[in-house]
Amino acid sequence: MGASQLDPFFNPKAVAVIGATDNPTKLGYIIYRGLIRSGYQGQVIPVNIKEPIIHGVKAKRTVLETSENVDLAIVVIPAKYVIKTMYEIAEKGIKNVVIVSGGFKELGGEGEAIEQRLRDIIKRHNIRVIGPNCIGVFDAKTRVESFFQSPERMLRPKPGSIAFLTQSGTYGCSFLEQIAESPLGISKFVSYGNRVDVDEAELIEYFAEDPQTKIIALYVEGLDNGSRFLRAAKRITAKKPIIVLKAGRTEQGSLAAKSHTGWLGGTYQIYQAAFRQARIHVAETFTDLFDKTKALAMQPVAKGPNVGMVSNGMGPMVMAIDNMVKLGLSLARLSSESMLLLSNVLSKYHGLKNPVDITGSATANDYRIALEILIDDPNVDIVIPFFVFQDTPLEESIVDELAHLNTKGKPILGSAYGGPYTRKMSNKVESVGIPMFPLPSRAVSAAYALYYQGKVMQG
Amino acid sequence: MGASQLDPFFNPKAVAVIGATDNPTKLGYIIYRGLIRSGYQGQVIPVNIKEPIIHGVKAKRTVLETSENVDLAIVVIPAKYVIKTMYEIAEKGIKNVVIVSGGFKELGGEGEAIEQRLRDIIKRHNIRVIGPNCIGVFDAKTRVESFFQSPERMLRPKPGSIAFLTQSGTYGCSFLEQIAESPLGISKFVSYGNRVDVDEAELIEYFAEDPQTKIIALYVEGLDNGSRFLRAAKRITAKKPIIVLKAGRTEQGSLAAKSHTGWLGGTYQIYQAAFRQARIHVAETFTDLFDKTKALAMQPVAKGPNVGMVSNGMGPMVMAIDNMVKLGLSLARLSSESMLLLSNVLSKYHGLKNPVDITGSATANDYRIALEILIDDPNVDIVIPFFVFQDTPLEESIVDELAHLNTKGKPILGSAYGGPYTRKMSNKVESVGIPMFPLPSRAVSAAYALYYQGKVMQG
Repeated sequence: MGASQLDPFFNPKAVAVIGATDNPTKLGYIIYRGLIRSGYQGQVIPVNIKEPIIHGVKAKRTVLETSENVDLAIVVIPAKYVIKTMYEIAEKGIKNVVIVSGGFKELGGEGEAIEQRLRDIIKRHNIRVIGPNCIGVFDAKTRVESFFQSPERMLRPKPGSIAFLTQSGTYGCSFLEQIAESPLGISKFVSYGNRVDVDEAELIEYFAEDPQTKIIALYVEGLDNGSRFLRAAKRITAKKPIIVLKAGRTEQGSLAAKSHTGWLGGTYQIYQAAFRQARIHVAETFTDLFDKTKALAMQPVAKGPNVGMVSNGMGPMVMAIDNMVKLGLSLARLSSESMLLLSNVLSKYHGLKNPVDITGSATANDYRIALEILIDDPNVDIVIPFFVFQDTPLEESIVDELAHLNTKGKPILGSAYGGPYTRKMSNKVESVGIPMFPLPSRAVSAAYALYYQGKVMQG
Repeated sequence: MGASQLDPFFNPKAVAVIGATDNPTKLGYIIYRGLIRSGYQGQVIPVNIKEPIIHGVKAKRTVLETSENVDLAIVVIPAKYVIKTMYEIAEKGIKNVVIVSGGFKELGGEGEAIEQRLRDIIKRHNIRVIGPNCIGVFDAKTRVESFFQSPERMLRPKPGSIAFLTQSGTYGCSFLEQIAESPLGISKFVSYGNRVDVDEAELIEYFAEDPQTKIIALYVEGLDNGSRFLRAAKRITAKKPIIVLKAGRTEQGSLAAKSHTGWLGGTYQIYQAAFRQARIHVAETFTDLFDKTKALAMQPVAKGPNVGMVSNGMGPMVMAIDNMVKLGLSLARLSSESMLLLSNVLSKYHGLKNPVDITGSATANDYRIALEILIDDPNVDIVIPFFVFQDTPLEESIVDELAHLNTKGKPILGSAYGGPYTRKMSNKVESVGIPMFPLPSRAVSAAYALYYQGKVMQG
């Protein structure tokens, strides 16, 4: 990956926090405190025109007084002071700026005018800006961050393969915490809010070249440079899956998006068709965005649409099959060899077919046998076991059985729903590499992403 | 509530567990052990033809040897022995039986023949049966239960106002644990599996008269006596809301349901229309079933469809509004008085309208002010605040502000999504009576239930 203008956002030599403060009620306090404690190894310089000492360190009055190696500025001051500060940043020669502050285009009127002046300055001085009105950046490896969510209140994920781009900082927080509570990790994170400069198109191009990033997930309200984004996506999706959640699908929703980040969404149907053409995964909900990302990060793609299921409780299978039919996946028709094996090796159960109903009496060994039969069946492309961990005959050794299962390149997605014991067991299963979903219908939607990506990769 | 044939299922004087055993790998072990430790105050008698001592207690060889006051039998023995046992139950004069065992109609062939003989016996002897192929009953007050899910693996909820009926035992487990981890409680629970006798129609009629039950939630694959159920529902729904999740919506799903509990579903569209006619709430997913139940249990009904929202993070509002439009709710147009108040009292924010965007700088006091304005606005029928608890300026005193909020009879539903800190805060908010949902679009679906029930009650 050659040097890019965007590099300092994720791997800066030194960061100036403009608006750092000792006043704990201000965002600048949390951002500065967060960054000096995040594990980031570079220098962090507090800048505040009024406070000479911040966190016991001598602060700079303006960015002009900071050391020469500062290559990233995080700006968290009222919008009305941002223009003056940008002139100083330009004079200093800093080329990368995260503007966290709100109060721009999203408010209309005066705010919109300030944003226009901001655009002019950054264009004239060739400065690259993320924001304004955002929570900014996070690199899980260099630990640079611009969050005004303290680590006591928001978990930071470990390094991993997922890049997440989001217009909404709020969804950003939720996504990062979900990742942090899963076996997954983040490569790079960008919340870009009003998107005055750096946009989705440029970011996905950047992540396409980023060796850490294997999967790109996005939440968007409206696209700035839709055609460049789609062209870029089309080049990327066969190598790195791109999953998009698009909000503002209705007129009222779009209007709310406009007053949120200043961008009006287009017709959802048009977006959807364009996304499909660029072979982008379209998520239905925020939950679906996470589920699809998780499946793609943890499992190989599927060679076909045929699903084999096994469970010790059949109720949730019915809705899972309903969802399968809706999405265009199929309940696999098992081979006659599999049917014979099932009735011989699991002869204590009767009338076994797909889904394989091993009833509330099922043991870990029964699961292993059934899963091996499904994996070996040439008619099965995707394997989805559901576990009623509450059913007490099922031993905890199921985790070992799953850890030692040879899945022969077929994707496997598990599912279980319950209280503390079920969550403990689900976490154990995830720790041996099988993604878990609370409901099998969600596992089915996630499995669809593996089927879709399989088709994308076949061209 | 006069004496009903169904009473002994929930408040038996003494219970015989036929198939109780000291073998910990058997369902009969867990059921017997569960019932003697559940807090149930009546006598529990183990019955096993082979084991003379069970859990240190002298077991009876058959139910014929049990004491006179046994008025409920729980049967957990292989299907092929059930008929003989039913003759003994009949001879003994026991009129209420939960048959947990599977191996009947759901298997076809031999199993179907046994189920037919079962039907004949219970009809001839006027015995009432729940099951077979189910997890049976639970009364949160008397603590009678027939679960083969040990308390170490499945939480039991506290007493409360929700009755849950489910064809699937698995969904039963998930629902009970969700209730147990919420501020809600259960009145009575029935998992009826193959439904050889006692059906949904009879059960909802029973719960209509049950003083503990205020809300009835159901998961069904197919209805046995659809017209009686719908007639009963029509009488009940204006007093006690009924929420139904129907699975087997596709042909493949229906077929899976048939081999699960032996019942074939009908066309989903027909069901949906019939449910609406009986003024039943139709849940989209299992999650939606729980969310609607929670909203109805914790909040008053809504007088109209107009939603007022406030948040310190706006992204999730966009999808919430999309969902609102889809469901037929509206984003309230605030009164000019409210608009004036917002701009005066929350003057540090600009351009406030609905949703009220108090940004990442919002404090607990800002929330209180905004919520009071929304509550007082005659154009607002439902109030939905979203909280980015991760945003550190928001003090934990928000819980006190919410606890002391006078909602003036308007429903309020909160939302927040994140990791451990957010869950802790959400639980605190729920403990002061405001139901919380991870995503505001889920809060909107739950709010729709309050609007729908409001219309039902207006007639």
